[in-house]
Amino acid sequence: MILAVDVGGTNIRTALIASHGGTVQELRSRVSLGDRGVSENDLIEKLSALFSEIISSHNDISAIGIGFPGFFSAGSGILLSSPNLPQLHNVDLAGRLSEAVSLPVSMQNDALCAAIGEHRFGAGKGHANLLHITLGTGIGGGLILNGVPYTGESGMAMEFGHLRVAGSDLPRSCGCGGSGCVEAYASATAVSAQYFERSGIQTDAGDIYERACKGDKHAKEIIESAGHCLGMAIAQAIKLLDIHTVTISGGFAGAWPLLHPAIIKSLDTELIPPLKGKTTVLRSTLDDTAGLLGAAALIN
Amino acid sequence: MILAVDVGGTNIRTALIASHGGTVQELRSRVSLGDRGVSENDLIEKLSALFSEIISSHNDISAIGIGFPGFFSAGSGILLSSPNLPQLHNVDLAGRLSEAVSLPVSMQNDALCAAIGEHRFGAGKGHANLLHITLGTGIGGGLILNGVPYTGESGMAMEFGHLRVAGSDLPRSCGCGGSGCVEAYASATAVSAQYFERSGIQTDAGDIYERACKGDKHAKEIIESAGHCLGMAIAQAIKLLDIHTVTISGGFAGAWPLLHPAIIKSLDTELIPPLKGKTTVLRSTLDDTAGLLGAAALIN
Repeated sequence: MILAVDVGGTNIRTALIASHGGTVQELRSRVSLGDRGVSENDLIEKLSALFSEIISSHNDISAIGIGFPGFFSAGSGILLSSPNLPQLHNVDLAGRLSEAVSLPVSMQNDALCAAIGEHRFGAGKGHANLLHITLGTGIGGGLILNGVPYTGESGMAMEFGHLRVAGSDLPRSCGCGGSGCVEAYASATAVSAQYFERSGIQTDAGDIYERACKGDKHAKEIIESAGHCLGMAIAQAIKLLDIHTVTISGGFAGAWPLLHPAIIKSLDTELIPPLKGKTTVLRSTLDDTAGLLGAAALIN
Repeated sequence: MILAVDVGGTNIRTALIASHGGTVQELRSRVSLGDRGVSENDLIEKLSALFSEIISSHNDISAIGIGFPGFFSAGSGILLSSPNLPQLHNVDLAGRLSEAVSLPVSMQNDALCAAIGEHRFGAGKGHANLLHITLGTGIGGGLILNGVPYTGESGMAMEFGHLRVAGSDLPRSCGCGGSGCVEAYASATAVSAQYFERSGIQTDAGDIYERACKGDKHAKEIIESAGHCLGMAIAQAIKLLDIHTVTISGGFAGAWPLLHPAIIKSLDTELIPPLKGKTTVLRSTLDDTAGLLGAAALIN
């Protein structure tokens, strides 16, 4: 069995997964990584303590695969940098963790892990090329080209959430320091913020979707605008990559019945004629296990 | 020797190139392809007559490599479609031409040929990954990933000229039927159109650059705005592909001393912090022979 780990901004999930994929046996209540200021040694200690505890009660674990919110030097397990943990630079995370727990450890960017999982086991299965988008508190992306995960020259490929979407006179600010990024319009966080601005009500994207279904005009407009912006960003990616399959996972993908038609309408406006109608946009069939399955698939 | 051919919108160029690249011996006065309505048979006849004439007076030609303004099924020489010649669909151009002249013929998209030429022999030499931009009457793009030309799933990758650039309230119309495309701001044609709108003077992009150098405020602003828009589009490509080398060829690259600083400034604004400063933007060292050298390099 492989111990699959998905290190998120707010919690660390762990699961046991057979090496050929298949059933995900999620292991425990979710634990937190701690604050942004965590040092390299604290991080190694925290993760290796968690892993050791799991390994001691499951003696069939042969390796650990980890999805982590950061940029990795291709295939090496060396964390180059992490927007969430800005104090970490060029840390051989996989190497240090492997030494600490005496098992092989592979690591890769979390959104790329989700893409790998979706490509191997989910809605992207059977497609040589795949653009996968994670739609949660932020927006991430992962790309598979010719069956191979694409990392870019410095492990930072597919910063999909920071593609600029045009057509706004007052572009919304983004966490990256810029403005007008698709993440500032279409992430769960952005949807929640826009709903608060329009209605004065503070609630989450799931609830906003339910309100939209019940006829709340503001909620519906904001979700459709999120889909429109997603379509604009997907169109930019298609114009560059001419890719035929896009999959979307993450909590806010729950708004699919409103999101998907808005994405398709926007794609149809944005694409040049010969590219129109060639791309299918699918909802993930794995949902929140894509990242864990992809992390397990790093081992092989 | 290889007969290299660059089929442009306004003329067909031919050259003799040794199979290892090197010197480009351009052959003859440039001839025209004819109007948009040319039929499949007329096109084959016109090109094969031209090639036969050349072959009859150069008996050392072993193969023909052609860059053509259209989309090709990867590696097959089958023209799927061509924006300039909309009546052509799924034509085995390379096969029919090969039969007509009894020599091996390879064909690929013209902008991708320019990328291949720049990567093998020009400013992109030695870089595994390259984004090449052709800046002429239109704007094209070609991508090399891990040393291999990237075509996309339907031969339409790198429609770089039709990336949308944000921040305009009244987006300019583009030949693709959309609006706000980088080609509508930064091609030689767009620069000329914008200068006419501002000054009432009809002149070409080369002359507008000379006017800018002599202190013409409108000319300078329009060229800098073109560089700004190019930087925005390049930033979108970098956010998706994390690519470190960009090369630019084509007639309007002659405005480099004004264009390049504007591109760099725009990139610095548009990129997220971890991607800033990683990419070098270089002017082609091959200039208008990149496409011919790339067409010759299709043979092998």
